Amino acid sequence: MKAALKIYKIGGGIIDRVSDLLEFLRLFANVSGPKILVHGGGKGASEMMARLGIVPRMLHGRRITDAVTLDIVTMFYAGKTNKQIVAALQAVGVNALGLSGADGNVILATKRLVREVDYGFVGDLSEESINADMVRQFLEIGLTPVFCPINHDGQGQLLNTNADTIAASLAKALSKQYSVELHFCFEKHGVLADIIDEKSVIPTITLANYAELKESGIIADGMLPKLENAFDALQFGVEKVIIEHALYIDGALKTTLCLN
Amino acid sequence: MKAALKIYKIGGGIIDRVSDLLEFLRLFANVSGPKILVHGGGKGASEMMARLGIVPRMLHGRRITDAVTLDIVTMFYAGKTNKQIVAALQAVGVNALGLSGADGNVILATKRLVREVDYGFVGDLSEESINADMVRQFLEIGLTPVFCPINHDGQGQLLNTNADTIAASLAKALSKQYSVELHFCFEKHGVLADIIDEKSVIPTITLANYAELKESGIIADGMLPKLENAFDALQFGVEKVIIEHALYIDGALKTTLCLN
Repeated sequence: MKAALKIYKIGGGIIDRVSDLLEFLRLFANVSGPKILVHGGGKGASEMMARLGIVPRMLHGRRITDAVTLDIVTMFYAGKTNKQIVAALQAVGVNALGLSGADGNVILATKRLVREVDYGFVGDLSEESINADMVRQFLEIGLTPVFCPINHDGQGQLLNTNADTIAASLAKALSKQYSVELHFCFEKHGVLADIIDEKSVIPTITLANYAELKESGIIADGMLPKLENAFDALQFGVEKVIIEHALYIDGALKTTLCLN
Repeated sequence: MKAALKIYKIGGGIIDRVSDLLEFLRLFANVSGPKILVHGGGKGASEMMARLGIVPRMLHGRRITDAVTLDIVTMFYAGKTNKQIVAALQAVGVNALGLSGADGNVILATKRLVREVDYGFVGDLSEESINADMVRQFLEIGLTPVFCPINHDGQGQLLNTNADTIAASLAKALSKQYSVELHFCFEKHGVLADIIDEKSVIPTITLANYAELKESGIIADGMLPKLENAFDALQFGVEKVIIEHALYIDGALKTTLCLN
């Protein structure tokens, strides 16, 4: 039987409010067994750019990661945010190890190809990106890896990668050795049947359900890529994907995704 | 017989010139056997503070690490500098692992006590600060730890520590398990007998020599704390301390310090 492994992903909203972040980390410390945390960025990098008078380059509503932006997000995500989380976890008894993809060569990304749009220093991941063996060695010496969304290309270039993608890629790669539960934590209690009713959490979504929910328009917008990522992970052997509120990961209200 | 371990420390000057930094890292990659790199900060943090209109608080010529300064140095040293070094080392075949003291709880510092001066968030190290066992485990799985000068107090607070002190403390703590060579790399070829003659490197300094050189005024100013650190390390079991030029670590011109 494979050993259990829980991977938690938290986004920017929770990082921007220190008291919420510390509350999440307290709950995360109570999660039993081997675990991994993946964090996104927060508003800090954008605020710093604004203070420096740097105007973010946007294209089709998406930010272009040029060299200056990469510098700032590396400082924020790999520096400030990652180290503050690691220090806070140490304070609640979790032996955390902060990682970018370059550290221990744990994640090797590829700079996104320029097609219609040049997104700049954005790192895409493939099936071979994750160094599962190195992550396993960290877990085996009792460490809790804490991933920031900065990776490298193996040629010395740092790259910015979406944190949801990092979490899903880690879950898929590690599911060969572990029975993996992937938790996407955000600011709602799960996938809502009615967007204005916070309590209308759909408890379980199967792949068949998902097609119906998508067709009927109940699930749309920002939730779609998260669920696509989630079902992709399940199809690659991840045991269970859970979507839940970052401040209630020990609660009953959540959405569990499974293949059938 | 103890296994060999080489610890290299590089300072700010080398970090501020990218081409010099890459040249040093190329030389470091060629160093055989288990090794550790400790890096200081560079001018980047001060420049960022100036651009943000933050005036460094100085007292008796020393910078006070207030909360804002700590944020900026954490971003620069643990974020930008550390990750750029790690990515560059990966590109030349060194499986580097970037670390603050909080990561894996490898270094536990104590906030400097306020006596006449409150230096702010500065972390002092003691004999118990280094988690030698965790560092050894990283070395044993083939990793090259790369330490930035940011540590933690175990209570969630990050602290700024002098990089020379980190290197000397690591060397002392690891000398129980390894035969340690400690290399202080800077922008001269070693300790100079004549400050205006770059070639006047003193090849060997023993503890007895050192007292004479200090008395005669040949060694003074900035070199004194480095040498105090060095002889302290030797007295705690470090095999050899070498002071050399960061861009010529494979060269013959250097100062070797030993007890006798």
